[in-house]
Amino acid sequence: MATLLVPQTIPSPAEDCEQLHKAFSGWGTNEKLIISILAHRREAQRRSIRKCYSETYGEDLLKSLEKELSNDFERTVLLWTLDPAERDALLANEGARKWSSKNHVLIEISCARSSNELFLARQAYHARYKRSLEEDVASHTIGDFRKLLVPLVSSYRYEGTEVNMTLAKSEAKILHEKIAEKAFHDDELIRILTTRSKAQLNATFNLYNNEFGNAINKDLKSDSKDDFLTALRAIVHCLTCPEKYFEKVLRLAINKMGTDEGALTRVVTTRAEVDMAGIMDCYYKRNSVPLDHAIVKDTSGDYEDMLLALIGHGNA
Amino acid sequence: MATLLVPQTIPSPAEDCEQLHKAFSGWGTNEKLIISILAHRREAQRRSIRKCYSETYGEDLLKSLEKELSNDFERTVLLWTLDPAERDALLANEGARKWSSKNHVLIEISCARSSNELFLARQAYHARYKRSLEEDVASHTIGDFRKLLVPLVSSYRYEGTEVNMTLAKSEAKILHEKIAEKAFHDDELIRILTTRSKAQLNATFNLYNNEFGNAINKDLKSDSKDDFLTALRAIVHCLTCPEKYFEKVLRLAINKMGTDEGALTRVVTTRAEVDMAGIMDCYYKRNSVPLDHAIVKDTSGDYEDMLLALIGHGNA
Repeated sequence: MATLLVPQTIPSPAEDCEQLHKAFSGWGTNEKLIISILAHRREAQRRSIRKCYSETYGEDLLKSLEKELSNDFERTVLLWTLDPAERDALLANEGARKWSSKNHVLIEISCARSSNELFLARQAYHARYKRSLEEDVASHTIGDFRKLLVPLVSSYRYEGTEVNMTLAKSEAKILHEKIAEKAFHDDELIRILTTRSKAQLNATFNLYNNEFGNAINKDLKSDSKDDFLTALRAIVHCLTCPEKYFEKVLRLAINKMGTDEGALTRVVTTRAEVDMAGIMDCYYKRNSVPLDHAIVKDTSGDYEDMLLALIGHGNA
Repeated sequence: MATLLVPQTIPSPAEDCEQLHKAFSGWGTNEKLIISILAHRREAQRRSIRKCYSETYGEDLLKSLEKELSNDFERTVLLWTLDPAERDALLANEGARKWSSKNHVLIEISCARSSNELFLARQAYHARYKRSLEEDVASHTIGDFRKLLVPLVSSYRYEGTEVNMTLAKSEAKILHEKIAEKAFHDDELIRILTTRSKAQLNATFNLYNNEFGNAINKDLKSDSKDDFLTALRAIVHCLTCPEKYFEKVLRLAINKMGTDEGALTRVVTTRAEVDMAGIMDCYYKRNSVPLDHAIVKDTSGDYEDMLLALIGHGNA
């Protein structure tokens, strides 16, 4: 469930634009006003506001926001204002260009989205960067990571609920053999993780657990410093329990010495309209602290206000 | 340009359905009537006819056709009547399940279609087979062919005309080095062929030719019996000059001892509404025999009539 709060009667895009334009005018910027509007509008509404704004004032709303805002608050508002597909394209582009073996953004976008959402992100990538996502991923990654990430970002997994139990059994066995041999980069292991449907993989992982006594992610933890293993675990996590995956990203971002604002912003802006309520439940269960308290403790100012608004605080 | 001929005033789907139903009724089947209708209707019209037929007679038109027709004629009518995306899904499924290193159908569907057409085929594949295309390709192919075919069928190439000449130059060099070393299965070579846009690859191949004195496909011919090399040449061919590629498929299908009806049917049904006129021009230039003469010589009966109708014979 989403955490986004939207007012019962929503102002017209023209009214919202007028208010936004007012927020940018005169002495200083009225950040509160910007939050009170943009943090309480759904995807389609934000799209209409952008369209109306550029028609009325001859400038892209995102450009105006960029001029007026700064730092983490700026990034949060910009990411949030984008369409989900454009936002994913932008995040994936950063994830590819500044790729490091510890960065899981590409995995997140490939595995914690629906097949169609991933495809829309690839379409938006064409429009924005005049290249394909897989082309950038392939040219910025190397070796085994490339072997893993290129099929991942190119996947269009079947999304039905049908499960082939015979196949699940035989592939659980293959996965177990490869993991036992520490053949983590094996083609078969990668094939299974990058092509099978989420329902099928869920069945495979369950059989793995039943048959071999451990959750697959436990067996993939034999070397906790190996980035490739961490990536494989992130894939399994994103595919089978995205809410828990995002809880963990938030936990690590917040518990770090010095908050990881990049991760915090990314999770809140990409999930507020999707499953943030479930992620917050997971967070509370795992940390015994509500996420909003943790955010209040770790952040401040307009950035804090924006994050809190997106996770359901304040009046819409 | 398409070769499909469509009458100036097109009967309503209801009228077409009535005629088709009549063609199936009574003693024997009226194949001429079937051809006179289906071989002269565009994609959207055939879709309307199928919809109307199933609403009126409670049976899928394809099922009725299957019952009434046989052999090559049946396959041609069935393939033709399908939507292009469904047809590609069916051909790709056969191409994956009965995969052999000499079969280029998967290459054709991955490289001689637009990015969007390939994506629509992947969507149709989900609907029809309850699996993904890449999943079937990955599980039916092995080794280097898998390394080549999985990214190929998963690709969503950028389709703009922008070309980066510096990149083209550096990648022409990489291709030349790998080919000179006979490292045909090299990751970099496969990355370039499977991810770059057609415009970019065209520039790369041109620079290859300028710089190193041979067309890339000539250098990829060092061992004419190596199926992997033949596959690489088919990829280059499909990406850069699909009409010539299809001309060659037709030429080999027709010049064989015993016509290769599978290939002939596939090319005619998949290209009649796209670029069959250009393919026929290429065919005539290369063989000094018009394609229709060659078809008349090699085929017979309703099959012959259907093929000829699709390449522009007869009155619509």
